Amino acid sequence: MPEIDSELELALNYLDHNKDESLNRLFDILKIPSISTQEKYSKDCLNAANWFVEQLKDIGFDASIRETNGHPMVVAHFEQEGPHFLFYGHYDVQPIDPIELWNHNPFEPKIEESNNGEIIKARGASDDKGQVMTFIEACRAHIKTSGTLPCKISILLEGEEEIGSPSMSNFLKDNKKELTADYCLVCDTGMWDYKTPCITTMLRGMVGDEIKITAANRDLHSGMYGGLATNPIHVLSNILSLLYDKDGRITLEGFYDDVPELSNEQKEQWESLNFDAKEFLSNVGLSNIIGEKDYSPLEKIWSRPTCEVNGIWGGYTEPGFKTVLPSEASAKVSFRLVGKQDPDKVLKSFRNHVSKNLPSDCKVEFLAKAGSGASSLEINSPEVKAAEKALYDEWNVSPKMVGCGGSIPIGDHFKSILGTNSLLVGFGLDDDKIHSPNEKYNLSSYQKGTRSWTRIIFNLSKI
Amino acid sequence: MPEIDSELELALNYLDHNKDESLNRLFDILKIPSISTQEKYSKDCLNAANWFVEQLKDIGFDASIRETNGHPMVVAHFEQEGPHFLFYGHYDVQPIDPIELWNHNPFEPKIEESNNGEIIKARGASDDKGQVMTFIEACRAHIKTSGTLPCKISILLEGEEEIGSPSMSNFLKDNKKELTADYCLVCDTGMWDYKTPCITTMLRGMVGDEIKITAANRDLHSGMYGGLATNPIHVLSNILSLLYDKDGRITLEGFYDDVPELSNEQKEQWESLNFDAKEFLSNVGLSNIIGEKDYSPLEKIWSRPTCEVNGIWGGYTEPGFKTVLPSEASAKVSFRLVGKQDPDKVLKSFRNHVSKNLPSDCKVEFLAKAGSGASSLEINSPEVKAAEKALYDEWNVSPKMVGCGGSIPIGDHFKSILGTNSLLVGFGLDDDKIHSPNEKYNLSSYQKGTRSWTRIIFNLSKI
Repeated sequence: MPEIDSELELALNYLDHNKDESLNRLFDILKIPSISTQEKYSKDCLNAANWFVEQLKDIGFDASIRETNGHPMVVAHFEQEGPHFLFYGHYDVQPIDPIELWNHNPFEPKIEESNNGEIIKARGASDDKGQVMTFIEACRAHIKTSGTLPCKISILLEGEEEIGSPSMSNFLKDNKKELTADYCLVCDTGMWDYKTPCITTMLRGMVGDEIKITAANRDLHSGMYGGLATNPIHVLSNILSLLYDKDGRITLEGFYDDVPELSNEQKEQWESLNFDAKEFLSNVGLSNIIGEKDYSPLEKIWSRPTCEVNGIWGGYTEPGFKTVLPSEASAKVSFRLVGKQDPDKVLKSFRNHVSKNLPSDCKVEFLAKAGSGASSLEINSPEVKAAEKALYDEWNVSPKMVGCGGSIPIGDHFKSILGTNSLLVGFGLDDDKIHSPNEKYNLSSYQKGTRSWTRIIFNLSKI
Repeated sequence: MPEIDSELELALNYLDHNKDESLNRLFDILKIPSISTQEKYSKDCLNAANWFVEQLKDIGFDASIRETNGHPMVVAHFEQEGPHFLFYGHYDVQPIDPIELWNHNPFEPKIEESNNGEIIKARGASDDKGQVMTFIEACRAHIKTSGTLPCKISILLEGEEEIGSPSMSNFLKDNKKELTADYCLVCDTGMWDYKTPCITTMLRGMVGDEIKITAANRDLHSGMYGGLATNPIHVLSNILSLLYDKDGRITLEGFYDDVPELSNEQKEQWESLNFDAKEFLSNVGLSNIIGEKDYSPLEKIWSRPTCEVNGIWGGYTEPGFKTVLPSEASAKVSFRLVGKQDPDKVLKSFRNHVSKNLPSDCKVEFLAKAGSGASSLEINSPEVKAAEKALYDEWNVSPKMVGCGGSIPIGDHFKSILGTNSLLVGFGLDDDKIHSPNEKYNLSSYQKGTRSWTRIIFNLSKI
């Protein structure tokens, strides 16, 4: 027993004595603008993938680039006795617009002071490069001090998480034998607050669609046609406004069929978290708690499905005026899914809603985003218990068991394709501004996150 | 009498023998991209104004550039005995987007064959450079053949018609004495069909607004905030969809207070025009006649007020997906006004509608477009009769007396500031695609339009 503890101690000591080198490695990968949704950054996505391959090879993993129809995967294995864990993360990041709201170049990472200590500022600092690096740096600490890892670890990094993981499902199917492990580990979630870690046991799924409504075959002069001819912006506004009723419920037919009510036990547990929704919203300048009547704020963002319009455009949008009846109007719409909601069924119901409310002389084109279902985890499994203990040891406080409104489709894929559960532990914070200008990751998230994974890997190897 | 007719004959003959030179002059001005709404074309607007000054000086007008807070005016006078007419037109043009839908460079004019003879293709060919040139070329023909004009003519060209003429009202007030004439002449309207000219006796007014709705103080992750936080695109869609009721009526409070019903006489006259709304719409790929219940298509576009959303934008609009709850969403909205509707009152009612439907934690900013009221003309005046006769002589068919859905604010300004009525004669056609890609002006509109003005000027001088 003292010997085993000292293995862990050695690894943790190594981390404490090599903080600068570890931070430099994170800065290196944050400099690569691997924006997956914009084609002009394709080369950068490949560069990011290659960077991870080199890092993993450097500490002894058998790592390689694996082609897909989109951005490549990184797959790496470290052979060892004992249980087998598959770690997942993503190297792609969100776009940086509106660029004018950033206080610095999003791909020139830097350290700044904040009320909660130092923070690392860059696109991807939190989502997900910083989080991925906490795990890789934990592996490095074990390997550099013990010469090996205490169990078999595989790593799978994708470059399409921010665009809905279109290649993942087929990749897992095609490489099922190689990738199937005893348990999956994912680092793409958040902490309860900057002193309290979390294990995320519920994740919403997602499906999205882009619609383009076409009315006239060209832009029309509003003076000549206005009041007589169909304006596609009016059609689109109307279709979008009909997605909700007065009680905040989504009106799509059958939308709530596969949405379970929360168990009383879970409800009580979440109530005990004393989540301050007013404060949560006031941090971003809002004060109204909207959404479904009769559900608590935490239910709304963790266990209830949503529908959000993420983008809209049509007609003249430059400075000045152009009195046009445009030919086209478009919107991007996405749904967060829970329980047994089927992405394809939701998509079909949405399209029916659009078609049903479309004037007969308009056309609509649909451009779907790949979807994935929701997932949830058994909270009394030995893996969850091992992680809980590790997090307690590092943070001196019991981790909260929470839901997450975000969608990490991988949880659903690992379960349905590999038959494997996923442990979701991450060190992001609500104010990390992921997907927004001025994204950051707390330095403590990075450093204590790395120490946390060092402990979790150690504990998991003893199961 | 034979002497007088021969003056006119000489001028008309001159036109027939100098067609190429006349077309070349039109091409010269069409090459200048005088887009008034986009600041980067400011220099081009000035160039276009200067070009007209030089043309008018060349044929003996006392012409000059006149500064405003925006793009300059062109003012020119040709002193002569007899009645005084003020001609109005504009040298600015609409933006060219979407540029990819043009079949050629919008500012490299060219002649093409069409089913109705040759056409001149370019931005501004019809609206309004081609139309302005029909009048100036008519003046040239008189001057070149008689050494003078048969009456006093002043010309006023503005460079801000496409952005709502923000400087016009003050300019007319400041130069009232210089510009007040016996009657105003405007060439910015259309023909009934390519063989039948029109005199436009009713014009709608216009007022517009741009609204920007702000919810959170930054873009939010839809997974973390979706279902709980206000999405400004939803707010905007809702506000816009509430602008209409199910019968196509605009819901703004007091909107129809100052809208007169059409007289039975006018109604019957318009019914006798046998306007084929189905065909009018099918030419632009539409089939549904929408708008206010219980009103005829011609009433809808000539004598009823409208509300149209001309542009909308918010959130992520690039290729791919970004699951964002945006901070802001915007729209440009414009109203066509009739009867005694007051632009300021309509604007106020619109803003009340927006504010009333705005969640308490959202902000809205308004950026108004200058407005103008509607105008109408006495159809039995000697000026209208003189023009009617001239048009009959040129086209061998009686001109139609029509309304116009478009807004030429100048009619309202001339009446209210100068106390002068305006004769609206133009040679545009419904398929000219003004404000759209591939704008054109029929060669016959240009050439017979010039001959028409030559006759109108002659007839008016005899009143």
